Amino acid sequence: MTDDLTYKSSGVDIDANTTWVSRIQSALTSTHNEHVISKPGGFAGLFRLTDLVGQGVANPVLVSCADGVGTKVILGIETNRTHDLGIDLVAMNVNDLITGGATPLFFLDYIAAHKLSPDALAPIIEGIADGCRQSGCAILGGETAEMPDLYKTGDFDLAGFCVGIVDETRIIDGSHTAAGQSIIALPSTGVHSNGFSLVRKLISTANLDLDQHHDTLGETLAAAVLKPTRIYVRQVMSLLNAFRPNTDITAMAHITGGGLDENVARVLNTNCDALITKNSWPIPPIFDLLQSHGIAESEMYRVFNMGVGYVIITPSDIANDVVRHLHDLNENASIVGQLIPGSGKVIIQ
Amino acid sequence: MTDDLTYKSSGVDIDANTTWVSRIQSALTSTHNEHVISKPGGFAGLFRLTDLVGQGVANPVLVSCADGVGTKVILGIETNRTHDLGIDLVAMNVNDLITGGATPLFFLDYIAAHKLSPDALAPIIEGIADGCRQSGCAILGGETAEMPDLYKTGDFDLAGFCVGIVDETRIIDGSHTAAGQSIIALPSTGVHSNGFSLVRKLISTANLDLDQHHDTLGETLAAAVLKPTRIYVRQVMSLLNAFRPNTDITAMAHITGGGLDENVARVLNTNCDALITKNSWPIPPIFDLLQSHGIAESEMYRVFNMGVGYVIITPSDIANDVVRHLHDLNENASIVGQLIPGSGKVIIQ
Repeated sequence: MTDDLTYKSSGVDIDANTTWVSRIQSALTSTHNEHVISKPGGFAGLFRLTDLVGQGVANPVLVSCADGVGTKVILGIETNRTHDLGIDLVAMNVNDLITGGATPLFFLDYIAAHKLSPDALAPIIEGIADGCRQSGCAILGGETAEMPDLYKTGDFDLAGFCVGIVDETRIIDGSHTAAGQSIIALPSTGVHSNGFSLVRKLISTANLDLDQHHDTLGETLAAAVLKPTRIYVRQVMSLLNAFRPNTDITAMAHITGGGLDENVARVLNTNCDALITKNSWPIPPIFDLLQSHGIAESEMYRVFNMGVGYVIITPSDIANDVVRHLHDLNENASIVGQLIPGSGKVIIQ
Repeated sequence: MTDDLTYKSSGVDIDANTTWVSRIQSALTSTHNEHVISKPGGFAGLFRLTDLVGQGVANPVLVSCADGVGTKVILGIETNRTHDLGIDLVAMNVNDLITGGATPLFFLDYIAAHKLSPDALAPIIEGIADGCRQSGCAILGGETAEMPDLYKTGDFDLAGFCVGIVDETRIIDGSHTAAGQSIIALPSTGVHSNGFSLVRKLISTANLDLDQHHDTLGETLAAAVLKPTRIYVRQVMSLLNAFRPNTDITAMAHITGGGLDENVARVLNTNCDALITKNSWPIPPIFDLLQSHGIAESEMYRVFNMGVGYVIITPSDIANDVVRHLHDLNENASIVGQLIPGSGKVIIQ
């Protein structure tokens, strides 16, 4: 018997992994700040909290979430928009993280692929780094796994993980929501990273061509549908500096799968309903296109964000101040509804 | 045109997701402690750091890592050992985390599957909860994604993320390693979660039957090869309470892919080599079996842990005290080598 079975012959190349790490190094370090402690060879990433805990965060609470980009990854692979999937991955996590008033600190990723091809995968990391820079978030680590028998040729999956910090006295949990308050919407860029199983089903059922330019979209279907998820960190951090959590900002919601209905309901007190007025914000044309191919309007609102990526709830007397503050940040915010006495439901009419 | 396309018809069932969350609730809460702040409906998990920062961790540094279980997941699926894969997932993360002296705080998981089947996936979460209880780690969140077109029927992938804390003055980074120090090995249970592409290649090439009982193993091949990765948190936390970081414990390494060679080298100063004496620790019989089917011994040591799951380096004059402390914890530790003047290499002979 010859001793000829090696790890490399089984499809895994440890040396290729070393090449990969050096390839992505500059993207990773582009996100680093004075908190990141660099220890070459270490088994885990290090983030110095001392200054943060000293300054202003007297009662530190860590906030953390995990998310992927769902089946958007499949369309992203098919259309080679992998950089943007990296932005989506960060967005899905940081937008969740900030709803409670937390400041994002760091991010880690998991990429599993058929093959560890640096040329194919580096753009994902560069997209993640781009999203992290937009969020003031350091990439503290990650894992890239080569699994030829789990993923088909060219396929990969992504998971992201984010940690932030908030002072316990400043956690926004929706418990201050009350009838009479205003609902402010921040626009989405389109579908973001939810509902893609339905999008893909529709593309296949209606036999749509992703590369086709649509005048109503002003771009190709692929460009419209795969536009990266907006990141709301800069705007929300600015609001949290200018307004008081809970007193002025009573709740925030990231509108993901389940749409306005499910995501706004998550932050409402059970003695009020959210009454959202249809047509009080512009619906991106991609949603008209999708709906025109056979999705009921109620299902559209149940699955997609319909043009609202993030919601902020404030007492009515400061709603205009909040909107003006957002406009000054070039954020096209608008008041789209109000809380009324109720039982924790979301009514879109 | 009928409006008949729904999210459910496209393969995703939002209601099923709600059932899933309630199914796994007790596993999740079994890991919770007084630090976890429970906020129903929240977009992210909350972990109160205040007490920890107040007591003893004056210069808090967060430590974080991400990892999966590699292609072990494929054999775990084939042999229906999904609970143990959950333990592996935690082990791969927490064992990395503690090498720098950190205490694990919380864990998040990402599970992506062909189908969100609570019966098939709940055991994974229960395994994760088991691993987290062994590690004193709270499950703070996670994401379960149903992706029928990315994963084949019955397939899934796992990623885990862990966060810990260490006082900056107590970070162990190997910078105190020096010639003359002793290398202490903690036993592995076998292959742990690395080298499975090679294991699977070998099983297929040699046409091995996973269900076959082997007298040398005392169990079936599946039981031996898929045994969950040991979690070293309890032992290492106890050591870090009893001995001084850097002065007494100069380095620690989790032996994963790359074996003793690559993982011990990561924590060595460049002016010393690690001289490890073969046969100074028991090699679990699974490695003999694997090697006997055509893997060179050098490749075995390059890919597998060969029976050593975790390494601790200490000054020689306290090595016996450290070993005795570990024996008192029922940990079968042994001195397997020493550091000698050199250039950062690992020599196994």
